[in-house]
Amino acid sequence: MANSRFEYVKQFERENFLLPDTYIVIRVDGKGFHKFSEKYEFEKPNDERALKVMNQAALKMMESFPDITVSYGDSDEYSFLLQKKCNLFERREMKLVSTFASHMSVYYMYAWNEEFPQKPLDPSRLPTFDARAVQYPSFQHVRDYFSWRQVDCHINNLYNTTFWNLVVKGGLTGQEAENRLIGTVSSDKNEILFKEFGINYNNEPEIYKKGTVMVRDYVSSHEEQELSKRQLQRLEKQRRKANISTLHVDIIKDGFWNERPWLE
Amino acid sequence: MANSRFEYVKQFERENFLLPDTYIVIRVDGKGFHKFSEKYEFEKPNDERALKVMNQAALKMMESFPDITVSYGDSDEYSFLLQKKCNLFERREMKLVSTFASHMSVYYMYAWNEEFPQKPLDPSRLPTFDARAVQYPSFQHVRDYFSWRQVDCHINNLYNTTFWNLVVKGGLTGQEAENRLIGTVSSDKNEILFKEFGINYNNEPEIYKKGTVMVRDYVSSHEEQELSKRQLQRLEKQRRKANISTLHVDIIKDGFWNERPWLE
Amino acid sequence: MANSRFEYVKQFERENFLLPDTYIVIRVDGKGFHKFSEKYEFEKPNDERALKVMNQAALKMMESFPDITVSYGDSDEYSFLLQKKCNLFERREMKLVSTFASHMSVYYMYAWNEEFPQKPLDPSRLPTFDARAVQYPSFQHVRDYFSWRQVDCHINNLYNTTFWNLVVKGGLTGQEAENRLIGTVSSDKNEILFKEFGINYNNEPEIYKKGTVMVRDYVSSHEEQELSKRQLQRLEKQRRKANISTLHVDIIKDGFWNERPWLE
Amino acid sequence: MANSRFEYVKQFERENFLLPDTYIVIRVDGKGFHKFSEKYEFEKPNDERALKVMNQAALKMMESFPDITVSYGDSDEYSFLLQKKCNLFERREMKLVSTFASHMSVYYMYAWNEEFPQKPLDPSRLPTFDARAVQYPSFQHVRDYFSWRQVDCHINNLYNTTFWNLVVKGGLTGQEAENRLIGTVSSDKNEILFKEFGINYNNEPEIYKKGTVMVRDYVSSHEEQELSKRQLQRLEKQRRKANISTLHVDIIKDGFWNERPWLE
Repeated sequence: MANSRFEYVKQFERENFLLPDTYIVIRVDGKGFHKFSEKYEFEKPNDERALKVMNQAALKMMESFPDITVSYGDSDEYSFLLQKKCNLFERREMKLVSTFASHMSVYYMYAWNEEFPQKPLDPSRLPTFDARAVQYPSFQHVRDYFSWRQVDCHINNLYNTTFWNLVVKGGLTGQEAENRLIGTVSSDKNEILFKEFGINYNNEPEIYKKGTVMVRDYVSSHEEQELSKRQLQRLEKQRRKANISTLHVDIIKDGFWNERPWLE
Repeated sequence: MANSRFEYVKQFERENFLLPDTYIVIRVDGKGFHKFSEKYEFEKPNDERALKVMNQAALKMMESFPDITVSYGDSDEYSFLLQKKCNLFERREMKLVSTFASHMSVYYMYAWNEEFPQKPLDPSRLPTFDARAVQYPSFQHVRDYFSWRQVDCHINNLYNTTFWNLVVKGGLTGQEAENRLIGTVSSDKNEILFKEFGINYNNEPEIYKKGTVMVRDYVSSHEEQELSKRQLQRLEKQRRKANISTLHVDIIKDGFWNERPWLE
Repeated sequence: MANSRFEYVKQFERENFLLPDTYIVIRVDGKGFHKFSEKYEFEKPNDERALKVMNQAALKMMESFPDITVSYGDSDEYSFLLQKKCNLFERREMKLVSTFASHMSVYYMYAWNEEFPQKPLDPSRLPTFDARAVQYPSFQHVRDYFSWRQVDCHINNLYNTTFWNLVVKGGLTGQEAENRLIGTVSSDKNEILFKEFGINYNNEPEIYKKGTVMVRDYVSSHEEQELSKRQLQRLEKQRRKANISTLHVDIIKDGFWNERPWLE
Repeated sequence: MANSRFEYVKQFERENFLLPDTYIVIRVDGKGFHKFSEKYEFEKPNDERALKVMNQAALKMMESFPDITVSYGDSDEYSFLLQKKCNLFERREMKLVSTFASHMSVYYMYAWNEEFPQKPLDPSRLPTFDARAVQYPSFQHVRDYFSWRQVDCHINNLYNTTFWNLVVKGGLTGQEAENRLIGTVSSDKNEILFKEFGINYNNEPEIYKKGTVMVRDYVSSHEEQELSKRQLQRLEKQRRKANISTLHVDIIKDGFWNERPWLE
């Protein structure tokens, strides 16, 4: 029922319903986290407690959205996999991305305030995230997506570890360290770390090298559109109660996935 | 440059670029604010300090995004108008809605913590918002959009004011008050308020009856895509420094808009 | 290079690139073919020669677009399956649907002129088609799509066969025949045909009961985006030369598909 | 009502509803008309009778779709303007572009057969068109769109006229003519035509220099969504009966548009 002659403006609203029966990955990315990490003086190359804040926020996401089966993140980004039968917000893209960005932001802010009471957030530099949703037709694409992110984590972390050792322990300026690393491949960086700083990169903490994966324990999946309301509620309850594991392991090889066939 | 054989998964990303030279309204809506207001015991029908938190969050939005020329909000929603030449995030819809939802949420949370130190937020009930973007081809549509929202504010506020007086002062249960109001029109509600509770609705505070409009003072507008980087920076600086007025006035009639021709 | 200051209007063009690695079905539907069949006096319930015209047009489609692996049609509609690796028109939706609608229309018109030289087309009633593209993430969806269309063909043909026998042989008016069929199920219609008109529906020609499926013989499939130009040309040539079979068989059961594993 | 358990596949269909109250231009483009013109031996640089076929097809488009107010075309393309209140096919993009491409193709084929009975179309080279729809928020954009196409017509025709004179009368090969024209501007080409071939380009027929514009005489416009069915039918009948003028005039300057204020 129209409440006024102005209500016609609603007709200009558009929705993009994501394709049914297709995996959805929503990735949130910190906005301006380079400056954020400078302002709040993150330890370099990795700030263990800041990562803990990210991971706590991601864990809250999984608790709030039982449709998320796996999450993976490192640095200032996190990817959330929605099972392919998921009907959250009727799969409306704007609703999904805006809601995920909103929740991630407040969960991060809450966890920050808990973790860093001595570093109160400044209103001019609060933690914010954008989000995007991507559709993948097959589970192989999903596997490749998470491999892509974990390779990226590895490449960035090896670079950052070498860069910051050159700066902090090696006394180079940022520009000098950057120049030193141009054209180097992984083995070169491993060698710099080992020969110049006595660091065996393989011994670095797994959380830095592999990132963090969170996975919900087994819950049977169903074609949700066909369930009764009561069945849906029971299923959601099961999902909410399922244990969530936080791991720092390889998700490129088959092992992780073979052990959890219900993710497919 | 591909960092790995997995990078092909990026090809599945899709962007919706909103139409150039078209007004964009982004509306953020509080998620589950009915329960939020119960949990944190908002005063009924209107909680002046909670509204202040919303308005402070919206003001921070206008300060952070100089492309916003006018904002209007009431209750748990706010609408932001982007000038039609705006090129923020290249007009990418997902980026716009996720970023706006994220910023609104953390600004709200920050303002809440300032305003209500004695009501700390519980992690199970943090303030979150979704967002949508709507395109309007002409300024008349924009005018009608804001009229629609202000009419809606009026209708809701008159209803809520009557409802809560019936409950709080009249001793009715919620269900009884609801039944009492079925089928009533505005004049009926005005009469109930006046005869039963001695309230002249016209004398209620303007912020409740009209909502809140924020408007940026004059800044010349330009076809941004044609400006040099330096000109763009100067323009953005001008916009950031422009004064922002916070008003509780009629935005349905022509007066407000005629006095600010640069909004078109 | 801009040819004039007006060229900016190109920026308003939008493209929808269909998801990679996803099956695409393009269905063309005759526009106003009810009136078309009246004007050109089609035989009822089925006009064998008009179906031949449709099938010839569809065969030309398969010859022109080697990316089509299977086609299925009946009455005034045809569905074309594009293999999931297909990169035709870079998977641009508007290009695909407009091109398919255009080709189908002129192929139909050409075939009509050949088949019915004594029934020249009137410019006020030419054969036109609209088209839509649908994306299916898995081959099971594709199977179900074709099953859906063949079930539809069966339901419509049984209805039409019974309806027209009631009218032509039974002497009922259209309205009377319609009323007679309200609430009847398949077995009722079979019985009417058998008892009143001595027709055993099972003996009706397969082309009417099953529709027409066209399938291209085996061509190895590849990730086209990764092929060299020369390889692509060779592949396309192979596809063009592959034999196309025209069948009137069941495509709901597994047999048809199991015999042609390359379709997946 | 589902006719079978397969009908769920319909849920994968997606629609793009074009924005209300926004001008829509649909442009159809001949596919492979370079080869088409060679196969059917078009006169060069312009084939008067082939242009007549295009224009007859476009005229049939205007007669079939009363929502078209202005059309403009040259060579193998035509642009159709739909009035901004138009609700044809509920503004569904795929329906619009596939239907326009289909109709244009069969109208062209019909007109060809009438105009060139001695040049029967070969089934391997029939006239086909693709189509795209573009949305323009203001009439100024529409004006600029048509200016863009007419400037393009002028540039192409001057080039082609010079090129073909160099080839046909000047005895150059295509490659030599192309090289001769590299880097030339309009005045250079005018001079070549005048000095070498005695041709004053200004005296060339207007249809070649300006293209063809078709315009429907005045019909009052309305918010179609608000009209009763009967009113809509009356309006459509008025539009169908309105005279359509075919002109070869400047549509860049204001004159053409000022004389027809109802187009806005």
